[in-house]
Amino acid sequence: MSLELRNRILNALHALWIVDPHTHINPHAPASTSLADLLGYHYYTELAHSAGAPKSEIEHPELDPRTKVQRLVQYLRPLENTIQYSWLIEILRTYYGFEDELLTPENCEAAYESSLHQAAAPDWAEQVLHRSKLEALFLTNDFDDPLEGWDTSRYIPCLRTDDLVFHLRTPGVQERLRVASGVDVANRESLEQALHVLFERFKSRGARACAISLPPDFQPVLTTAGRADTAIENLIQFGLDAAESDQRAAAHYLFWTLAELCRQYQLPFDLMIGVNRGVYSAGVYQGRDLYDSRVSLIQYKQLFNAFPEVTFPVSVLASVTSQELASYAWIFPNVVTNGHWWYSNTPTLIEHDLSVRLEAVPCTKQIGYYSDMYKLEFALPKFNMYKRILAKVLAERYVIDRGWSEDRAIALGQTILKSNTARIFPG
Amino acid sequence: MSLELRNRILNALHALWIVDPHTHINPHAPASTSLADLLGYHYYTELAHSAGAPKSEIEHPELDPRTKVQRLVQYLRPLENTIQYSWLIEILRTYYGFEDELLTPENCEAAYESSLHQAAAPDWAEQVLHRSKLEALFLTNDFDDPLEGWDTSRYIPCLRTDDLVFHLRTPGVQERLRVASGVDVANRESLEQALHVLFERFKSRGARACAISLPPDFQPVLTTAGRADTAIENLIQFGLDAAESDQRAAAHYLFWTLAELCRQYQLPFDLMIGVNRGVYSAGVYQGRDLYDSRVSLIQYKQLFNAFPEVTFPVSVLASVTSQELASYAWIFPNVVTNGHWWYSNTPTLIEHDLSVRLEAVPCTKQIGYYSDMYKLEFALPKFNMYKRILAKVLAERYVIDRGWSEDRAIALGQTILKSNTARIFPG
Amino acid sequence: MSLELRNRILNALHALWIVDPHTHINPHAPASTSLADLLGYHYYTELAHSAGAPKSEIEHPELDPRTKVQRLVQYLRPLENTIQYSWLIEILRTYYGFEDELLTPENCEAAYESSLHQAAAPDWAEQVLHRSKLEALFLTNDFDDPLEGWDTSRYIPCLRTDDLVFHLRTPGVQERLRVASGVDVANRESLEQALHVLFERFKSRGARACAISLPPDFQPVLTTAGRADTAIENLIQFGLDAAESDQRAAAHYLFWTLAELCRQYQLPFDLMIGVNRGVYSAGVYQGRDLYDSRVSLIQYKQLFNAFPEVTFPVSVLASVTSQELASYAWIFPNVVTNGHWWYSNTPTLIEHDLSVRLEAVPCTKQIGYYSDMYKLEFALPKFNMYKRILAKVLAERYVIDRGWSEDRAIALGQTILKSNTARIFPG
Repeated sequence: MSLELRNRILNALHALWIVDPHTHINPHAPASTSLADLLGYHYYTELAHSAGAPKSEIEHPELDPRTKVQRLVQYLRPLENTIQYSWLIEILRTYYGFEDELLTPENCEAAYESSLHQAAAPDWAEQVLHRSKLEALFLTNDFDDPLEGWDTSRYIPCLRTDDLVFHLRTPGVQERLRVASGVDVANRESLEQALHVLFERFKSRGARACAISLPPDFQPVLTTAGRADTAIENLIQFGLDAAESDQRAAAHYLFWTLAELCRQYQLPFDLMIGVNRGVYSAGVYQGRDLYDSRVSLIQYKQLFNAFPEVTFPVSVLASVTSQELASYAWIFPNVVTNGHWWYSNTPTLIEHDLSVRLEAVPCTKQIGYYSDMYKLEFALPKFNMYKRILAKVLAERYVIDRGWSEDRAIALGQTILKSNTARIFPG
Repeated sequence: MSLELRNRILNALHALWIVDPHTHINPHAPASTSLADLLGYHYYTELAHSAGAPKSEIEHPELDPRTKVQRLVQYLRPLENTIQYSWLIEILRTYYGFEDELLTPENCEAAYESSLHQAAAPDWAEQVLHRSKLEALFLTNDFDDPLEGWDTSRYIPCLRTDDLVFHLRTPGVQERLRVASGVDVANRESLEQALHVLFERFKSRGARACAISLPPDFQPVLTTAGRADTAIENLIQFGLDAAESDQRAAAHYLFWTLAELCRQYQLPFDLMIGVNRGVYSAGVYQGRDLYDSRVSLIQYKQLFNAFPEVTFPVSVLASVTSQELASYAWIFPNVVTNGHWWYSNTPTLIEHDLSVRLEAVPCTKQIGYYSDMYKLEFALPKFNMYKRILAKVLAERYVIDRGWSEDRAIALGQTILKSNTARIFPG
Repeated sequence: MSLELRNRILNALHALWIVDPHTHINPHAPASTSLADLLGYHYYTELAHSAGAPKSEIEHPELDPRTKVQRLVQYLRPLENTIQYSWLIEILRTYYGFEDELLTPENCEAAYESSLHQAAAPDWAEQVLHRSKLEALFLTNDFDDPLEGWDTSRYIPCLRTDDLVFHLRTPGVQERLRVASGVDVANRESLEQALHVLFERFKSRGARACAISLPPDFQPVLTTAGRADTAIENLIQFGLDAAESDQRAAAHYLFWTLAELCRQYQLPFDLMIGVNRGVYSAGVYQGRDLYDSRVSLIQYKQLFNAFPEVTFPVSVLASVTSQELASYAWIFPNVVTNGHWWYSNTPTLIEHDLSVRLEAVPCTKQIGYYSDMYKLEFALPKFNMYKRILAKVLAERYVIDRGWSEDRAIALGQTILKSNTARIFPG
């Protein structure tokens, strides 16, 4: 009974055309060009490396795509249990006519050829979007992205601000800011002018969010203008030789200023809370970050109180923070739950975290899911994974446990999965 | 099979008359007088506010009950998914002849009239108690409550001590203590005399517990009499101008003294661990508190060791502390698990936390549930929610997974839900 | 459907002969001699004490076994819900012809007699191993264990190092080290020589792991030789009077040196993270330890990066650390998930933690389970508990949710339960 019920709800969810509110798609090359692009996703390289693949063998800079596939496929057996592996197989079966259960040294050559053939179609990205029922998706744009050369109503700009807040003293960043803004950034005031220029550009090009990822020990506080003056001048003068305390003060000041600009420009500010960068320093590309789950949203108390007009869609890296996220979204009008991020993006954790949110957060304040993908093909298996869990939770916890009608459960699923994105990130 | 089994167990649980071991009922006005009292519960005002209702619109001091209902109902749609909303509908359907699934601007007028009509019955509170199968319930009494004017075997006094421990320097508190105790509180010794008077009064009026809520960073320690002397004298002399360090020392001293009085007067000491007050300062009444889930029961090591004769029924605000609670109750004879508190009082979290406790804590050391209600009508839907989850866990994890007989599972449920309250809080 | 599926998978798991990779078995007396040995397991004494048994009544040094059983049985009623109680009953029914559901004052005499009779068989330990389908098991050997007098291919040595790292200043430990190593330990260099002697001996006697349990606040760091020189000399000279800072520096140095020796001698280093010793100081034997769940694997960042050649099978005491463990094993090639330890060894927590690991950690990097037992009889009910949960998770999350074939699910179970132990701890 329960399985048929789940499937009926799932089918209703499958009927929706949706918007993906957070991706890392390159709008100039949104789809993969071959299986090598899929297998190059950090999930596969990092898991293969973790299971025994030497980094040098799978990450050599002169590795041609076909060889890369052949090498990685040798190391996939220990990954076959993972949910990430299931995404790969679902892509192969959906898009490339693959009919096996596993990708092996024996069948990978044919799969590679098929992927080349399909991806060569001039409208391949459009085909993938259509098949995934994606109306549009949000990008992750560097602050100096010119935002030109693509349809920004389909590939929606989103200002990513990690570099500005955490890497202003890193060589090149200040120069990129000067070029992008046309402002000769020399102190706090000119820095603020430059930020205004960026927000103007992003807003005029249809940006619908500002976003940042934050380490577990970050606690935003209001910095005085005087302290910020000194800190920023030292960062500009000394670069990487600037004191850690100046970097910290500047980061606090810049973060707060971005929140203020989000208020002025009416942009939601996506907070992705909890990542420690470079924990495994010898890891593969994008496979080096981890976290400390000892983080609390109480660290954001001052921020949430200071900016009641700014919507903060919040993602947390550790599932143990998930109850706090639900509670803060239940109390603060400007806090919204946002998807299931990275290390929490696996079925058991999604099922738990989603259930907790559904039961206590107003349904209009929950953004169900985003794919976080780098290539379009991943939207389909990732959203399908989420929809299956959503259908299961709606079937078991709403229709069975609470006696809801199927229609009412489906309507709740639609709100979470589709309608909220448009409401929370207005175009 | 599993659903029928669940229902049979549930029916057996429904047959019990129980005692609710923690509420905020006003014994002089225990039931609601209309739908406005129900919708005025902080869950509805805070969730409605979180979902968009301006505080001024729903909390205006001169708002008459009918208008308040009309206004709040406008904002309920986004809450329909929450478990708290389901409590409301279950009350309407049980007590007011309501037959719809949702409370809307269209049907709220009739519901309001019906609530007025029912609540006007002179024995309405008795009817609600009877319908809820509540034998008795515990109150939350201020230390200066005269405890007179009601049947204390039905509405059982419980001494709430937050004011004494954390607010002794707040204007009015010391004066309330002098009046209530008849002792001229001027120093540590006279303060202790006053506390003895309070404990005598509460004990003689049938009090069965002392209770307190505690912030996440509280760590009880034994304070020397000398340090306490200074701290208390400074609090008495300087009030809110007293130093933070004196407030802290006095709080530690007072908390420890209350534990000692619980030992002398043989009262269990309910610890409700983990709340940060006033986190969202612009929130509605009672909708401002949140928490930091980074709390550990190791903070209570010294206390639990120092008072082996005192029973500590412990509630935790964050579900992530729930495993620690189960482990500490498994090891310490004087630690007892107590219900599912506030932000952890939602089905998915209860199911997890309850299952963890049932599998590892002696069954005699678990107080299954308390309602925490402010109006009697909420006992029924809250306990029903809990009973459904308890029946589900007993069916799935005991009868199915472990091969228990239904009778044995039901007996376990009865111990958790009913018998332990009488054993742990002897009358 | 789901229950039959679970059972078919369970039967396939039951067919395996396995190795238990962590126990506290005494190889000179591996099986129990009577029911008193079973009831003497700390789970029963600590739970009975927690539920009301005075320590003096159940732990008196002159208590004869029969009386001990009679006394403990009086206190078992409140424990009948616990999973630990179910282990006891499963042992009684499997090994002693017990046919009841509960052990009571009425039937305990007969059970005691039966246990005496069975355990008197000269090949009793062999019978229990055979019935449990245990090929071999790992011991927990003190560093000065001569490792002689038993078949080390059946009872495999494992070097436990808590005493060396955390108790070097405790009276007797240094002398034990001198005797065991034949080295006159007088400073850092001779201490290292002594450790080499120990590793040589353990390795030559077939040891397959080094192991240690660690408090929640431990954060391994590399210590300079100079600081270590001073610290170790002070520990040798002053014993318990040595400064806390010297004890800490020595512990860091010794821990790091053990990791280095594991590298040289090619031994995995089992880390059991999170225990606070002696929290309930008046508790029964082995029933005094608890934990602080605020621990993070980020504390081990430097260690994991410094020893890429050493495999670290990691156990965590608190389930809330379990997602971090899965994530660190997903990223670090040298981190492996190891079983379900102590306070996390209960069904609901195992089900959650196991599911999280299966979905994101390469299957070759997960050691499913170890019994942690002190007497052989406990292998059967503990592994059976785990196998039932593993079968449930494979049935529900793989066959049903993800459409896997039963054979594929069973093969995954076998990898987790059996094959990985041989691969990760090579003989």
